[in-house]
Formats: sequence, structure tokens, C-alpha cells
Amino acid sequence: MNRLILRQFLLLTLCFVSGNVFSNNGYKLWLQYNFVEDSKLREEYKVGLNSIFFAGNSETVKVASKELMLGLSEMLGEENFKNNKWNSQLVCASEAFLNHELKKLLKSELEEINDEGFVLKTFMVHGKQKTVITGKTDIGTMYGVYHFLRLLQTHQSIKQLNVIESPKIKVRVLNHWDNLDRTVERGYAGFSIWDWHRLPDYIDQRYIDYARANASVGINGVVLNNVNANALILTPFYLEKVKALADVFRPYGIKVYLTARFSAPIEIGDLKTADPLDKNVIQWWNKKTEEIYKMIPDFGGYLVKANSEGQPGPQNYGRNHVDGANMLADALATFKGIVMWRAFVYSEHDVTDRAKQAYSEFVPYDGQFKKNVVVQVKNGAIDFQPREPFHPMFGAMPKTPLMMEFQITQEYLGQSTHTVFLPKLFEEVLHEDTYVNGKGSIVAKDVDGSLHGDKLTGIAGVSNIGNDINWTGNVMLQANWYGYGRLAWNPYLSSGEIADEWLRSTFSNDKKFVEPVKEMLLDSREAVVNYMTPLGLHHIMATGHHYGPGPWVSNLSRPEWNPVYYHKADENGVGFDRTKTGSNAVAQYAPEVAKMYGDIKTCPEEYLLWFHHVSWDYKLKDGNVLWDGIALKYQEGVEEVKSMKKTWQKMKPYVDDERFKEVNMFLDIQLKEAKWWRDSCLLYFQQYSKKELPVGVDKPEHTLEYYKSLKFPFAPGN
Amino acid sequence: MNRLILRQFLLLTLCFVSGNVFSNNGYKLWLQYNFVEDSKLREEYKVGLNSIFFAGNSETVKVASKELMLGLSEMLGEENFKNNKWNSQLVCASEAFLNHELKKLLKSELEEINDEGFVLKTFMVHGKQKTVITGKTDIGTMYGVYHFLRLLQTHQSIKQLNVIESPKIKVRVLNHWDNLDRTVERGYAGFSIWDWHRLPDYIDQRYIDYARANASVGINGVVLNNVNANALILTPFYLEKVKALADVFRPYGIKVYLTARFSAPIEIGDLKTADPLDKNVIQWWNKKTEEIYKMIPDFGGYLVKANSEGQPGPQNYGRNHVDGANMLADALATFKGIVMWRAFVYSEHDVTDRAKQAYSEFVPYDGQFKKNVVVQVKNGAIDFQPREPFHPMFGAMPKTPLMMEFQITQEYLGQSTHTVFLPKLFEEVLHEDTYVNGKGSIVAKDVDGSLHGDKLTGIAGVSNIGNDINWTGNVMLQANWYGYGRLAWNPYLSSGEIADEWLRSTFSNDKKFVEPVKEMLLDSREAVVNYMTPLGLHHIMATGHHYGPGPWVSNLSRPEWNPVYYHKADENGVGFDRTKTGSNAVAQYAPEVAKMYGDIKTCPEEYLLWFHHVSWDYKLKDGNVLWDGIALKYQEGVEEVKSMKKTWQKMKPYVDDERFKEVNMFLDIQLKEAKWWRDSCLLYFQQYSKKELPVGVDKPEHTLEYYKSLKFPFAPGN
Repeated sequence: MNRLILRQFLLLTLCFVSGNVFSNNGYKLWLQYNFVEDSKLREEYKVGLNSIFFAGNSETVKVASKELMLGLSEMLGEENFKNNKWNSQLVCASEAFLNHELKKLLKSELEEINDEGFVLKTFMVHGKQKTVITGKTDIGTMYGVYHFLRLLQTHQSIKQLNVIESPKIKVRVLNHWDNLDRTVERGYAGFSIWDWHRLPDYIDQRYIDYARANASVGINGVVLNNVNANALILTPFYLEKVKALADVFRPYGIKVYLTARFSAPIEIGDLKTADPLDKNVIQWWNKKTEEIYKMIPDFGGYLVKANSEGQPGPQNYGRNHVDGANMLADALATFKGIVMWRAFVYSEHDVTDRAKQAYSEFVPYDGQFKKNVVVQVKNGAIDFQPREPFHPMFGAMPKTPLMMEFQITQEYLGQSTHTVFLPKLFEEVLHEDTYVNGKGSIVAKDVDGSLHGDKLTGIAGVSNIGNDINWTGNVMLQANWYGYGRLAWNPYLSSGEIADEWLRSTFSNDKKFVEPVKEMLLDSREAVVNYMTPLGLHHIMATGHHYGPGPWVSNLSRPEWNPVYYHKADENGVGFDRTKTGSNAVAQYAPEVAKMYGDIKTCPEEYLLWFHHVSWDYKLKDGNVLWDGIALKYQEGVEEVKSMKKTWQKMKPYVDDERFKEVNMFLDIQLKEAKWWRDSCLLYFQQYSKKELPVGVDKPEHTLEYYKSLKFPFAPGN
Repeated sequence: MNRLILRQFLLLTLCFVSGNVFSNNGYKLWLQYNFVEDSKLREEYKVGLNSIFFAGNSETVKVASKELMLGLSEMLGEENFKNNKWNSQLVCASEAFLNHELKKLLKSELEEINDEGFVLKTFMVHGKQKTVITGKTDIGTMYGVYHFLRLLQTHQSIKQLNVIESPKIKVRVLNHWDNLDRTVERGYAGFSIWDWHRLPDYIDQRYIDYARANASVGINGVVLNNVNANALILTPFYLEKVKALADVFRPYGIKVYLTARFSAPIEIGDLKTADPLDKNVIQWWNKKTEEIYKMIPDFGGYLVKANSEGQPGPQNYGRNHVDGANMLADALATFKGIVMWRAFVYSEHDVTDRAKQAYSEFVPYDGQFKKNVVVQVKNGAIDFQPREPFHPMFGAMPKTPLMMEFQITQEYLGQSTHTVFLPKLFEEVLHEDTYVNGKGSIVAKDVDGSLHGDKLTGIAGVSNIGNDINWTGNVMLQANWYGYGRLAWNPYLSSGEIADEWLRSTFSNDKKFVEPVKEMLLDSREAVVNYMTPLGLHHIMATGHHYGPGPWVSNLSRPEWNPVYYHKADENGVGFDRTKTGSNAVAQYAPEVAKMYGDIKTCPEEYLLWFHHVSWDYKLKDGNVLWDGIALKYQEGVEEVKSMKKTWQKMKPYVDDERFKEVNMFLDIQLKEAKWWRDSCLLYFQQYSKKELPVGVDKPEHTLEYYKSLKFPFAPGN
């Protein structure tokens, strides 16, 4: 009997006997490579894998082969695989390394893929199964290996493989809002995993495991530092450290990007200006960029937040976003680097609806940006709310590639204690129809370039990763990192497929676990919308840290920072009129969409209070008046969390002790806080509606004054 | 064949076959419970352990029994132990639960121990071995269980046990300099493990494992927060969180303490004063203390840093340390709580030698403190240097219990990248002879109370723990947490014993590993003294973060913050004259000691420049002139690190891949930095000595200007 089989058998047995001995702290993410208990399936896998051959010897081939061996030995309880060279049952080789016969056989498949794509193909040779994993590059082949491992992790057949895949988006990055002092803006999972002080000489094992996790889902870039940037990252002292990380990530196909503080030429370059048209400034950025590429030849480029929330930018010098972005683009162009220029702008001097400002400012620039500039647009026009209609810029700049910016970290969605499955939110946005080229012009098509034929395409996710042992502060939120990566690879994947894959890879393939927990995950996004901001309410979180409710806040210096700006509750009703009678933000959408949102009768109720100021007595589709409808939605949110808790509690047999308990504690917190949201918001809005709570809605536990008095010093991520 | 044996066998085999699969991230500390490979020894253990009985059902009994089962199953590959009640081969029961027969048999042993002590005793009954672990309390019995586990971990015989042990010091605490925002003052292992925001509802598994680790070495208290305190910790919002931690720690015999910011009555109590003689202030502290004990009935008490480095204190109101300490002591007395009042004071208005000030201020108060006050004194009179003579307060306050304060975190000793085995430093201090009651009046005796008959005794270690996965930022520095705990239990243990135990429990019992690495550890402390501050040099570290050398610093606002204050290098020589001709700090020691230190001929050369300003041409004992001697010591430090590196590199066969590589990277950093220290300090001092480097000392790699120009923004712990 094979040693590894035995070990695996025993490990499995023991997991249930004495959870603590083999407690699972979640560090391994979705790369658990659980032993395949089903002996029939395991034998099927083994039959197709008795010999393995990896061609090539690049660092990428080495890490891919190491990963495959790790995964197979863990899943199959077998670590000795023969290497019969080209006669092996599994052959992993990129196109250049394929032998003549295989190259010929795979010709048409290889023509279908792009540089990062892969082919997984099973042939029958003399009645024996032979599988080839290939790609145009070693990186592509590596993605194929991870895909192959995922098939085994999710217990799929590998008998007749014919997978041809390419990522649909070119630049698939994580944005780390990590500061040099290791605090993380909007970070709820501890502190930055970048241990700047001990870099470059100490390479934390985390960096390697981070790269593995990203590669396994297809993420190919990482912006290391906060968009609210510190110019020091561009000094040699830090660039040495950045280089060390780039060296770790390179074999995994991951490029490093940095945020460029627009005023860096002043702060670290001793110049008197950062004017993008100033010769010295242009020269400074050219030289700085050259310096970076000397150290990091595959450096990805710059991400810039300019003239936004106090960050410096070209407007400080009477220039515009195009001037700023193009100046940096020129510096990068020689090295094939790109500029990701954020469109998240709104001005304290502009009294128009904040939701309109980014569109108003950027759309006129369409066509003026250099070819290596991509404009990075948040999914909605406000700021990563539990639910927002899609950003009107999508579809509206046919001559400019737009990059989607999702927020994986849950700044406004319960932070790290609320289980919210975000692929459901991402999917919703990606599938919304802009109608700019008629029906079917969905957001995903603008992002993947197919709508307007963009060559440069990108997607960014604001990371939820920190130095907590389990990376995301809560094992359930690992799903959001995973799901973001999978959607970045293929924005047409369904959230259900993603939930299924992630649960199987992370916990168990047992149907009795997968089915109910998948349902729980898929329902979790609507739950948070309901208990925080139902029916189109938005941005009513507490000040600064955004932890918990604060619909009453009205004393902040900038009007558009106050929740009252967004909900506009009064005795007549509640909601932000963005129709013609109001800010007319709807006019920024294509006519079909503008019409639908602009008419209270056709506006989806999920967006009702986003676009309309609605009377408390307005009749909703279900017959309830608005006030009752709001109250019942809050209650529904609470009930949904109760139901999540119930579901999870039945999962004890399928989950190790440590992760089971952790999720349980977090669901308790989520329930407590869902009630807090419901009670405080309803008490607040009740002042205006002057109506009783409808039957079925629980009475608040405390007074409004109590909720308003709550303070959270040192809340994280602020 | 038993399943667990098999598993263990396979795990072991695999560790060497494919290090990565079972890489060890160090999280388990010294509680690895490695499988006992030696089958003869394993059988011997098993023969004595076929049945086990735990009497009692307190939470402490539960955790002790869980720990024993975990340890035995891992070490012996056996998890099914019979329970033959009193006929079991191993019986664990505190005195009250012992049956009549055992109580009688163990009567005299039980009389010897104190409340936290334990007895491990083997009897032969009908030719069969029977072992009893007992104590006066469940906590004592738990300590016995951990001791028993350690015997197995270190492969000692359990055939004829007759261990009778009690901790020699009552209060054995870790001081966490952790802030409420999770930064850690002088923390180099990530951030605070206290996740305040998610407490009290989320109980991180770390809290439990932290308690296990502490209990295993006998630490029985933890001061949760920084001595530079924030009064908010005393508000109900935080006390709820403190209570949650106290509840986790209680079963492990660990009490929670808090730092009390002296101005708290003003900051959180709305009073206008914090005058310790003010009625309202007294009442406020009484009520606050009562409030705490209502929530945490076994709360330990307060640690106070008052009128020191800008912290508020009784002197702000014209009162003195006795007034302040006694006011808090009165509030705590009802509940049996204690005040730990720090003696680390030095004033910017006092021009006398900083080394003299604490003694001058505190010794006159001897006998005036309440019974539940203990004065906490750093090991040396300056500040946790690589080497300092013992603090002159030790021995000098016969009517006041003095608590030793060691710094486990390496503020001045290379922080978390330098492997320095601190038990060697602690041992040196504990064994220094104060001579106050004649020869043999060693520091340890003042700390354990035997010198002056103190009833309240204590020891504090400033924690080196952070949220890095391996707890201390570098697995080798786990030894310092371990060693501190062991010495707190028994200050007479030798550093060699401690190194031996720790290495065996943490890595391997293989002699080929233990012997060389033990030597490496024991030599490491002298190495850091040599490459940083040889021959009595001190406090020449860089400003603020104390990372790296800064002997040239002379521009800080307070004279005694400048390195030049301490080394006083000039053309005539170097060193601080603390003899009669200088500050006369020597006079604070007992005459025998004063005489020895005061005379350059009898002063140990390790302390030469601490007590004397010495000519560059002064002849050292080895015949070298001082300048050459200093230079050769710096070189020796570098050579010692090279030798550490050589030793470690041979250890690859005995250590898992991850920990092996980690220590290797850190030794590389240590070597690089040892050279940095040598080169920059010698270049600096050479300006005054105007002498060439002696033969055998490497030429500096850079200029002095280069070393002076180095900047470390965001260095940790600052």
C-alpha cells in the first residue's frame, strides 16, 4: 500500500476524529489539494497520470511542475510519477517545446489562443489516454496546469479533455491600497503583507504563496501600493525592494506596477513643479521610468489617482487629465508599460451631483489619450456600495479603453466580518446593458474590448488581502479574491460556477456541503443590500471608517461626504432625484437606459431611491407602501443572515473545527450588525416617515440616540 | 499497525523527501510535539502510559488533558488511551481530587510546593510503573502536565520521576507594548496580535495558542497594552474586549493586567485633575477598579509608567511616585490586585548622569510603598543595551519588592533579523552579585525575594510577539520568549539547559543538530555585543527606531538621547567616566562592587567604557592598545556571525525547508549588518583615535559619510 495513500487516508480520518490536531487555519486558500476520497475517481485519475513529462526549464516551467507534483501527490496520495518523455501520459510543454507530432496535432487549437491561453487536450493513442497541456508560452502552459489541477480539485473527469481557453482581458491586476508603514487603507485582514523593512533580503514565504494563488486564478499583475500614494516608493531604497518582489512574481506571470504620485518630481526629485508640460518634469519621469526598467525589465507601469480627494495632479498646474496621463504614457511607451489613470474624481467646487462628475470630466477626452493609457473606472458612479447601477462611463468612451475597478475589500459591505459573496455583485455589473451599440452592449464587452475593439483591456480589484494567517481576515472572503480572479480571466463566468469551484477546492466536494453553502453564498449579496441599503439607498455608512450605519451624519465639511446628501430623506419621502426633475444623471446613460431609470414605473426597484425621490406612501410592486417596503427589506436582510447561520451550522460534519468555528463567530457578528443596521436606519428614517413599523419587523433594541452615540476608535482601514 | 504511527512515520519520511509539502511555518513554536522516532524510547514511554486518568472537570483540567492528549498522540503515534480511573498508569489530579491512598503517599511532596507548584512522581506498584502528576491546584497540576510533556519532547526517561517544583517568582508577566491601533512599540514581528476591533465576538485561535505557549513555560500574567498608555483601554468599550481575552486565558492560569495612564481621570473621567491626593481622583480610580473586577474577577492589576519620557504622573501635581503608586494600590487592595510601578525615570531637567537618576529618585522611598506595590526595574540603568552592568537599584531597596524588567524584543539588539539568544544575557544579569548582604547576594535573589524576604515577587519581559505567522518574526527568536518564561519560573536555570530544551522541542533531538546549534545560540549574545557595542560602549544606535549604528548623532534635543553623551569619544579617548572623577555612578553600588567597577584595573573589560573614559593607547589585558582592542572586537563580532552562518548551513538535514531557509536569510542579513556596524563605528571613532585599523580588521566598504547618510523611513517599532 502506498505510503501517501495511507497518510491521506489517516489524515482524513483524523480530521473528523480530532479536529484540533489537524486544524486548518485557512492559509492554503483554495489550494488545499484535498485527498480524493472517492477511490473510483482517484483510480480513474491515476490511470491517466502514471507518467508525466514537463518540457522546458524556465523558472515558470519549474514552478508549474512543482505545483502539479504538489497537487497530485496530495490529491492522489502518489508522489512517484514516471517520466517517459514524449511517451508520458501527461505532457506539459509550451508550443516551442512540443515535438513535431504534437505540434501538428495541436496546430488548430494553438491558433485559437492568445499568448496567455492554454490547450488541454486528451488523445487516445493505441487505446491509451494521453493528455497534453500546452500554450503559446510557458505562462500559458502554467495556466493550463492550474486549470488541470482545478479539474481534479473539483472532481471532474479528465478522460476526454478538450479545453481551449484564453483570458479575455489583458491586464488583470490586484490593487493593493497598502501604505509603506504597512497600514492598509480599507484593509480589514490585518496589515500589509509587504514587509518593506525586511525586504529585499528577507523573502517571506507568503510572497511565493501569494503568487501561486494569483497565478492559479489568472491574475497577472499587482499594484503594490496605495493609490493615495507616497513618492518614496519610487526612490532607489524602495525600488530595490520592489525588484525583489518582482523577481519572486515573475515565474508566475505576474507583473509589478506602482502608483505614481503626481507630485513625485517635487517630493523626491528636487524640482519646483510637477507640471506635466514642463521639460524638466518630463525628463524626470523619463529618467525615473528608465531607472525602474533597468531594475525590473518587465515592470507593468503606473496607476495614478490624480486630482481626486486631495491627491495632486495636472490640474494643479492648469493642465488636464489627458496632459498628465499622456506624459507618463510617453515615458512608459519605450518599455511597453502602461498608465492606468483613475476616473474616480469629484470636486468640492462642483455643486452638481457627485454621481455625474467623472462622466462629465472624462467623456469629452475620449480619443485624446495615448495608446498605452487605460482609464480605470469604478463599477458605479459613487463608491463601491452594496449595490449601484453601472457607471455611466461604461460604453460612453468608444475610443478609450476603460478598465473596470472592483473593490474586493468590503469597505462598505461589512468589512471582514460579513460573509458577502462578491462575484454575485461583479456578475450583476458585468451583465448590465449599456445599450450604446444597441441591446446586448453589456458592460463586460466594454471591459474585454469587444464592444469598441480596444486592444488594451484591463480589470482591477482592490485587494482584501492582509497579513492575517488566512489572508482575508475571514476564510469565506477568500472566495472574493478567487472570484475576482476568475472573472478577470473570463468576465462571462457565472457566480454560481465560481461558488461551486471555490467551495469544492477550499472545503469539500460533498454535495451535502456544496449545494447548501453555494446557495448561502449566492444569497449573501442580496442580504447585505437588504440590511444596509435596500431599494437603492446608498452611502449611509458612518464617517471615515464606514463601519456601521450613519444615515444621520450631516456635519462633514464637503456636502457629498454626508449620508444626508445621498438619501435626502424628508417628510415627503426619501431618495435622490437623478431624473430630469433632479440632477438628470440619468441623461448620462444611453437613451434606452436613461428612459428606463428615469421613469419611476420602469426603474427597477433595486435602484428606486438611487434615481428617484419617492413619497413614503408610494405603492411598490408588491403592494406595500414605500415605508413598509423599506422596513420589510431591512427585516428580510436580517432573516437572510439568520438563514445563513442555520445553513452553516449544519455544515459541521464537512468542515474542520477551526474554520467551522471561525465562520460561525463571524456569522454571529453579521447577524448582530444586520440588526444594528436595521434598527438604527429604521429609527432614523421613521423620524421623517412618521409611520409605525409594519407587522413582521422586529422592534429596535435601543433608541436612535444610542445608535448615534456609538464610537469606534481605531477602527481598521481608516 | 497503528494508524497514527503510520502517519507519523510517513510524515517524517516525507519531511525529508519533499520539504515543501510539509513545510513548517513555525506557528507551533516549541509545542511541535514531534514524533519520537527512536522506537525503543517510544515503547518505553508507551509502556508507562497505556492508561490515563484526569480527575476534576474545571476548565483548567480540560485544557491540560486536551494538551496531554495532543502531545502524546503526536509524539507517540497513539491516540487511544484507556482510562482505568485510579488504576491508570498516569494519574493527573490536583490535591483536592487525589484519592486517599495517593494523598497519603504524596503528603510530604505536596507540603513542599506552593499554589502553582507541581509534583511528578513515579511509584512502582506490583512491579508496574505508575506516575502521578499533582499540585495544590488545577493550575499547578497543569504546569506538571506541561513539564511532563517537555520530558517527552526532550527524550528524557519517565521511568523514575521525582520532580518537585514550584515557581520561584510569583508574578511572571509579559509586557506587551501594544497600542490600540495595533502598532507595537519596539515590535518587529508584524503588528499586535490583539485584534481589538473584532473583539469581543471574534476569538482568534491565536489567543488560545498564545495562552498554551505561555502556560507551557509558566508565564502567568500578561499586560495587554503599551506602558506609553492610552486611557481608552479603561473604557467599557475596551473592557468588554479585555474581558473576552481574560476569559480565554483564565483556564491557563494567566491573569490579565492593564497599563493605567495616570491622567485617565481627566481623559475619560471628565475630572479636571489626576492629583493622586484629590478625593475625586481617588474615588474615580476606586470605582473604575471595581468596575473592572466586576467584569474580570481575577484581574491582575495595573502597570504604570509615570513621569517618564513625557508620560503623566503624580509629579505633575507636586506629588511623588509613592503618592501615585499607593493611591492605585489602595484601589486594588480589596481585590488582591497589584501595582507594578516602573522605575524607568530620567529627567530632562536633571543634568546628572542618566544612569544615576532612577536610583537617586526611588531608593529614598524604600519602605514607603504599600504592600501590593512592586517597583519594576530594568536590568540595567540605561536601556536594554546589548550589555549593561546590573541596575544599582537591585539590592538597594530592602523594604521594597523589585520586579525585574527584561526586554525580550530586541530594540537595541538587531530587532527581528539578528539571531541573539537572550537567556544568556538574562542569566548574566541574574547572576551578578550586588554584595548588599555580602558575597552571594546575586540579583536573582532580590528578584525571587529571598534576599530581603519579599512576599510579593515579580518579573516582566517586554514581549517580542507580533502577528507574523511565526509569532516572533524569526523562528530563532522564539527561544527568547521561551527562555524568558523558563527563567521567570526558575531564575537559577542555566542558559545552556534552556537552549537544549528549546532546540529539542522546537526542531530535533538529534545530537548532531542540538550540540552545534546550542553552541551557536550561546555564542550569539557575545557576537552582538562585539559587533555593536564592545568593551562597555552603549547607546550608540541610530535615532528613534534604533535600527543600525548612529554614534555620530549629537543633535537631539535632550542631551541624554544622543549617542555622543554615552561614548564621549575625543582625542584623548573614549568612554563614560562614572568613577569618582566623573559622575560617580559607581557609588550607587555596594562598596565591594563600587570598588571593583571604579578601578580601571579591576573593572571587567566588558564594562570598561561604561565606567571609564579610557585613553586610545590604554593597554588591555591581552596587550593590545584600546583602539586596536575595539577594532578587533568589532571584527570578532563579524567573525562570530560568519561562524553562526557556517554552523546553520550544516543543519539542512535536520530542519524543514521553510525554517531552514528563513534562518539562513536572517543570518545573511545579520552578517551584512554586523559589517555595517563594524565599518561605520570604526570609521567614526577613528576620527578621534587617528590610528590605523590593526591587522586582521577588514577595511570598510563605504565612507563614513555614506553610513551617516542612510535613512530608514517607516522602520518598524518606532
